[in-house]
Amino acid sequence: MSEVKRIYSFGDRKAEGNGKMKELLGGKGANLAEMNLINMPVPPGFTITTEVCTEYNAYGKQMVMEVCEKELEAEIKNIESIMGMKFGSVSNPLLVSVRSGARVSMPGMMDTVLNLGLNDEVVEGIAKRSGNERFAWDSYRRFIQMYGDVVMDMRPKNKADNDPFEEIIEDVKKSSGVENDTELTTTELKELVKRFKLAVKEFTGKDFPIEPKQQLWGAICAVFNSWMNERAILYRKMNKYSDDWGTAVNIQAMVFGNMGNSSATGVAFTRDASTGENVFNGEYLVNAQGEDVVAGIRTPQEITISGSRRWAKLQNVSEEERLSKYPSLEEVMPNQYKELNEIQTRLEAYFTDMQDIEFTIQEGKLWMLQTRTGKRTGSAMVKIAMDMITEGLISEKTALKRCDPARLDELLHPVFAKNALAVTKPVAKGLPASPGAGFGQVVFFADETETWASQGKQVILVRIETSPEDLKGMVQANGILTARGGMTSHAAVVARGMGKCCVSGAGSITIDYKNRTATVGDIVIKEGDWISLNGSTGEIYLGKLDTQAAELSGDFAKLMTLSEKYAHMKVRANADSPRDAEVAFKFGAQGIGLCRTEHMFFEGDRINSVRKMILSSDEAGRRLALTELLPIQRSDFEGLFAVMKGFPVTIRLLDPPLHEFVPHFEKEQRELADKLGVSFEEIKEKINSLAEVNPMLGHRGCRLGNTYPEITEMQTRAIIEAGLNVQARGVAVKIEIMVPLVGNYKELKYQKCIIDRVANEVFTEKNDRLEYLVGTMIEVPRAAITADEIAEFAEFFSFGTNDLTQMTLGFSRDDINKFLPEYLKRGILKSDPFQTLDKKGVGRLLGDAVHLGRRQRYNLKCGICGEHGGDPESVKFCHHAGLNYVSCSPFRVPIARLAAAIAAIE
Amino acid sequence: MSEVKRIYSFGDRKAEGNGKMKELLGGKGANLAEMNLINMPVPPGFTITTEVCTEYNAYGKQMVMEVCEKELEAEIKNIESIMGMKFGSVSNPLLVSVRSGARVSMPGMMDTVLNLGLNDEVVEGIAKRSGNERFAWDSYRRFIQMYGDVVMDMRPKNKADNDPFEEIIEDVKKSSGVENDTELTTTELKELVKRFKLAVKEFTGKDFPIEPKQQLWGAICAVFNSWMNERAILYRKMNKYSDDWGTAVNIQAMVFGNMGNSSATGVAFTRDASTGENVFNGEYLVNAQGEDVVAGIRTPQEITISGSRRWAKLQNVSEEERLSKYPSLEEVMPNQYKELNEIQTRLEAYFTDMQDIEFTIQEGKLWMLQTRTGKRTGSAMVKIAMDMITEGLISEKTALKRCDPARLDELLHPVFAKNALAVTKPVAKGLPASPGAGFGQVVFFADETETWASQGKQVILVRIETSPEDLKGMVQANGILTARGGMTSHAAVVARGMGKCCVSGAGSITIDYKNRTATVGDIVIKEGDWISLNGSTGEIYLGKLDTQAAELSGDFAKLMTLSEKYAHMKVRANADSPRDAEVAFKFGAQGIGLCRTEHMFFEGDRINSVRKMILSSDEAGRRLALTELLPIQRSDFEGLFAVMKGFPVTIRLLDPPLHEFVPHFEKEQRELADKLGVSFEEIKEKINSLAEVNPMLGHRGCRLGNTYPEITEMQTRAIIEAGLNVQARGVAVKIEIMVPLVGNYKELKYQKCIIDRVANEVFTEKNDRLEYLVGTMIEVPRAAITADEIAEFAEFFSFGTNDLTQMTLGFSRDDINKFLPEYLKRGILKSDPFQTLDKKGVGRLLGDAVHLGRRQRYNLKCGICGEHGGDPESVKFCHHAGLNYVSCSPFRVPIARLAAAIAAIE
Repeated sequence: MSEVKRIYSFGDRKAEGNGKMKELLGGKGANLAEMNLINMPVPPGFTITTEVCTEYNAYGKQMVMEVCEKELEAEIKNIESIMGMKFGSVSNPLLVSVRSGARVSMPGMMDTVLNLGLNDEVVEGIAKRSGNERFAWDSYRRFIQMYGDVVMDMRPKNKADNDPFEEIIEDVKKSSGVENDTELTTTELKELVKRFKLAVKEFTGKDFPIEPKQQLWGAICAVFNSWMNERAILYRKMNKYSDDWGTAVNIQAMVFGNMGNSSATGVAFTRDASTGENVFNGEYLVNAQGEDVVAGIRTPQEITISGSRRWAKLQNVSEEERLSKYPSLEEVMPNQYKELNEIQTRLEAYFTDMQDIEFTIQEGKLWMLQTRTGKRTGSAMVKIAMDMITEGLISEKTALKRCDPARLDELLHPVFAKNALAVTKPVAKGLPASPGAGFGQVVFFADETETWASQGKQVILVRIETSPEDLKGMVQANGILTARGGMTSHAAVVARGMGKCCVSGAGSITIDYKNRTATVGDIVIKEGDWISLNGSTGEIYLGKLDTQAAELSGDFAKLMTLSEKYAHMKVRANADSPRDAEVAFKFGAQGIGLCRTEHMFFEGDRINSVRKMILSSDEAGRRLALTELLPIQRSDFEGLFAVMKGFPVTIRLLDPPLHEFVPHFEKEQRELADKLGVSFEEIKEKINSLAEVNPMLGHRGCRLGNTYPEITEMQTRAIIEAGLNVQARGVAVKIEIMVPLVGNYKELKYQKCIIDRVANEVFTEKNDRLEYLVGTMIEVPRAAITADEIAEFAEFFSFGTNDLTQMTLGFSRDDINKFLPEYLKRGILKSDPFQTLDKKGVGRLLGDAVHLGRRQRYNLKCGICGEHGGDPESVKFCHHAGLNYVSCSPFRVPIARLAAAIAAIE
Repeated sequence: MSEVKRIYSFGDRKAEGNGKMKELLGGKGANLAEMNLINMPVPPGFTITTEVCTEYNAYGKQMVMEVCEKELEAEIKNIESIMGMKFGSVSNPLLVSVRSGARVSMPGMMDTVLNLGLNDEVVEGIAKRSGNERFAWDSYRRFIQMYGDVVMDMRPKNKADNDPFEEIIEDVKKSSGVENDTELTTTELKELVKRFKLAVKEFTGKDFPIEPKQQLWGAICAVFNSWMNERAILYRKMNKYSDDWGTAVNIQAMVFGNMGNSSATGVAFTRDASTGENVFNGEYLVNAQGEDVVAGIRTPQEITISGSRRWAKLQNVSEEERLSKYPSLEEVMPNQYKELNEIQTRLEAYFTDMQDIEFTIQEGKLWMLQTRTGKRTGSAMVKIAMDMITEGLISEKTALKRCDPARLDELLHPVFAKNALAVTKPVAKGLPASPGAGFGQVVFFADETETWASQGKQVILVRIETSPEDLKGMVQANGILTARGGMTSHAAVVARGMGKCCVSGAGSITIDYKNRTATVGDIVIKEGDWISLNGSTGEIYLGKLDTQAAELSGDFAKLMTLSEKYAHMKVRANADSPRDAEVAFKFGAQGIGLCRTEHMFFEGDRINSVRKMILSSDEAGRRLALTELLPIQRSDFEGLFAVMKGFPVTIRLLDPPLHEFVPHFEKEQRELADKLGVSFEEIKEKINSLAEVNPMLGHRGCRLGNTYPEITEMQTRAIIEAGLNVQARGVAVKIEIMVPLVGNYKELKYQKCIIDRVANEVFTEKNDRLEYLVGTMIEVPRAAITADEIAEFAEFFSFGTNDLTQMTLGFSRDDINKFLPEYLKRGILKSDPFQTLDKKGVGRLLGDAVHLGRRQRYNLKCGICGEHGGDPESVKFCHHAGLNYVSCSPFRVPIARLAAAIAAIE
């Protein structure tokens, strides 16, 4: 192995590293170094680099021990000299902590060992030197337990199993009749140590190691190993962090918060991580070590007086009781609090972001153990970023970059109240298909949803999966739950479009339409039962959970204004009705990027005309039915244009296979036959003849308009007439007519011919004109490949990345759940390509198409209208691909706006 | 319009054009010019260029008349001066013929007018000058009829209607009691002319034009118009000729074969167009004009004595009767025959190809009216090309280029006897899915096909469409007829693979499984009825038509040897069983490019093990079922390797969605449940859970092997064990293991990992080794786009252009018939992309992938195994894309071999 520096020391206001070296030293190590450099009280120590972790994974423990040996010795000597103590000495022993620290914070994922260096002799030395025998033995029993769990692998594999050490503690507490660990006597602690060591022998077949150096290496390797533990791997996968990064190991002189009542330990935030308010807050415990605060064995106390009082109020604790039992640090140790408060102020100002800090007070002296950027909720994220601009701490650009667009989602949908979630367990889990909270009575049929809703009932529509036929029911429901389908299933897409909560693909639920039940394990949910859905987590609850509405605060508005200032791309919305368009407009959409005309077909009675058209045996019959649809479509379009007040509105011509519009069950088919006055058999045969093996690749999109040109004629007429009508009212109208599923320039050429002809006919009839563009979806790979040919006839491209992904990857989004979970698990895919654009495949086609298209037509307008338009990572890609706009569901417009701004800044 | 030369003259052994100017002068015009240049007796005339046709279509008659006027006048003067006659003169009138002539021969598609220049006065002049009044009036009545039909649009629009002129002729013949036109007297001919002119007036409301110049322009425009008539457009579409070419117009001095018994007219071939034999042959009529020979009003006579005798024998005509009624030209006009024979010999030698010639003898003088390359059957094509090499007429390369690979198909499959086809009309028509002739009794269920066949019955399997479950039945059937599905439907692909005739997508047939009937219009075909299928034309006949076996002559073998000499690419076959492999080997396949392992799953009882595997609820169950499959697959592979004797064999791992292997009807599901000892409900639920919305884009290909690695393990073991076993017998074995449906390099990497591990396990167990390659199908667009990444793990690429076409174009080949016919009709598509590779889309991806792949791995072997491997145009593309081989169904191997040679030569 190469000769590189593997260990970086810090302590006594000096450090070999600094805060910028997070990749090498991990976040914790880098910040410990930096805190030394800015004169903060930090226990001395050193950081073994992340590179060593990589070496460890490649070459194993022995090699790493050999190459680190010398540096490690020197660094321990350095700590010893700063502390005036000696590692392994009995008379004046140095204890150390061993902590993990990756380049990003992965809270709770990896391992820590405290009080390392203790054994039966050293414990006596500590007792003697500190004059505090109880403290010594308390530290010793803590050490054995932690080391046993972490290094000797005694942590129970199964969550349901008890920790062997905890069992012993419970046993001893019981027999001595005490409730808290702090009440255990020295004798009892000694008893614990004895029994702990026996347990180690029993469990592992080995004695507990007594040699401090051996203990140290055990702990270091345990930290390295923990980088590859299951939950850490999963966490990285979820957050798309690389497995190659590795973790650093931080070894520091121990300082003790458990040395009696002048000692304490705590964690704190420089601002409120939940609301973003600029108030110092945190929790601490007297006479405790770090893990006690978070472990919940004792109730932690608030750091500030104001925090403590608020807590007491929430918990119904009187001021007297609070002062006696749960006083704040500000009250208990006012001097140390003052120092801490000064330090937190300095830290935040220095790092110019909200900090999450850990500290320990040992016999009155304050030590800082960690500082890092604090995690926060979406709304806190926005508030803090906006506040810090006002405070002059950060620039506008920095503030924008600090906001994760995906987190805005939380601000836009109603959510379950926290207290409700605290006391209820989900009965099943599906995919978080559309965020927000929803509750209602279970209904299994879309048409019945309407009936129930018309009686003022709150309804959750529960289906195996949904189809466009269910749209009316979905509009009426508070939320949608499906047993099948993924994040981009019909239910999911439509629900997100409506900003309605949806849990999809809840595979553990079996739905029995006949008996009107949904079964999860032993639980049978019947029609009319109340359930609650958390669309942000995919969790499903029995009963009716309380919700709280989302607030779009002033800070949110400020963020959007800032986004617009910096973004290059426009953000449009996918909206199919005036109602959707209004939401989009409210969220700042600068146009409609996709209006799926067919979504309007299911409202009211219009589906009858649609079906009549589809089931006609000849063109004349189709034309007759289309005549009925014309005024309906025209009036929808008038509504859209009126709402969008001159922003561009892209209307896609009929796209889905006709099969989607006809009824598939005998009862409805018979009804339809009666309605149309033809025989059931005829209807049935016609419907069957529409069936396709792969409807996704079948008779749809412009293939419909090119085989039944009269449909394109009617839709064009409806669009242009609507435009002229709205224009006549003095409202500006900007129309973009979009031809779907083009794969060959001739398909577009033929459609454009029809559109231009009909438009001119209408202009002549009405003796009025308007401007309109004709463009195409780029959603078939061949369209992207031959974009230059197509651009000759297209005035704009709109990338339909849903279908483009389906075809480029050969993934049917309706079927992908059969293998996607396995592919994600095995790392074959990093993310669901329907959520995050596949840059190498689909992205390459998209980029090439933009390039080819603009070579043919330099001012070709390019946008994206797939689901990816609302995904921040994909928005970034679109920015770099040179798109003019992204279009997404109305509720994702703010997310896309922020993402577009960040992409432009970066 | 620009100043260009629009008319080219010829005559009197001089010509402004020549034989190479076919694009400008059309084939006929160019060859008329060339014949003049080589001193042949050709009536003088001139050719109006194809460019004028284009101008005509763009600017109309008036403009074209204006720009041509002067040249036309001059050219008519030229003819007049050569002939010593005058156009429109009464005393010495020149008559002309007006004929179409495109750059390629489109026999019968466009129009001709003969005897132009006649009117009531001129006819008298002709009569006087020729001293043959009957001839004059015969020509006149012919002219009016032809002009009426062609120029004045009196040809009946409906085939069932009678030509008004023919009605008059029949009427006159009847009242005068004669049988043949030749028997009509001059008076009767005059009567005809009178009535013809009245008919013209009645039909068109106009008088018949009497001005010769007006007649001429009428005829010229009629020829131009005929370029855009329906049947010409259809013909060009079928032959993929461009509509832009236009036709030339040839105007020539009339020579008359109807000037009495020393006059005649005929057509002839320099070799036999049916067999390719090197014998002069043709037909003629005395005292007739050109159209009489082909019109079938009189029985045409043979030109040569030998031909005449053969004809008489076939028709049971005695030598006496023959000599008296049907003598040959050789006997009737020996001198003219001799001259004709010399001319035909010179023409063939000059043009170095078999010629189709037209001639007229006017009062003993031979005139040549046309020569062109003769159309011929597939076997004649091969024989003539091979003979001409031997004769030293053409080079090997030219001979290869003369052979159209697609035509070889005719030589490879049995065909219906010509006399059978002559007397029987098809009842319906479908797609010519797999060539050849087949007859048998109708059976509607695949399993029953087996039963019937086992009783020695001949069977045609009739299905709405077929699925892999039907394979066993298909093997047993003489032919397959489906009501749905295209040229690349399951039925079509499998049938072509078997070399079995198949008509697919016969949409006019309604199949009723319940009543076991197939209905076409009023005709009900019941189970057990005999039908015959012509897989080369798509025609379906009632009853049992005689067939004749195809002969692979020595010339065919010679052609194949030549092909191999010149081709760069290897040709492999797609073969799934040792039986297929043997056929492929016989046809000269140099390896197996695609063995679809799953096709073996349906033979015998093995489907039970497959189903057991699929329906297992856990890995252990799957492994158990796979253990049963292992020896079966191994033995199949042993058979394949043994047959292919060291040629490479590419075995594709399991590809289709599992749903294809399970039964879909309750009865079979119940049987299966019994067999597996589980409840029907369980089986049904499991089978339902396998259903997919778009199975094409679903859980299939390597997605199976990556979710159920145990399948890949079993298949690898079967392949490697089989290879070692065959190798142990001293037979060379070359294995290529192919992973299907890879879209992401990691999918291949994981599969390769499993393959290499299992192979090594087998090597260790058997203490023996062999070489094998691991490669992948490139069939998902993303695979082509990221081919460089994939090539890191692939030792070969095999382009699965069927699926690549489906995904790149977004066309489901099972559903394409819903819009493909319309797209072909409208010219949106030039050809079915599943038959001929879409070069701009799919081809571009393929080319890029080869390039990217070889950049990563310079010696990457690349081939194609889609249906396109057997399509000559696609083979040519593959050659230029640098592929190492193409693989196609066994029966198309010769076609691909020839196509590969031609591609290399060009």
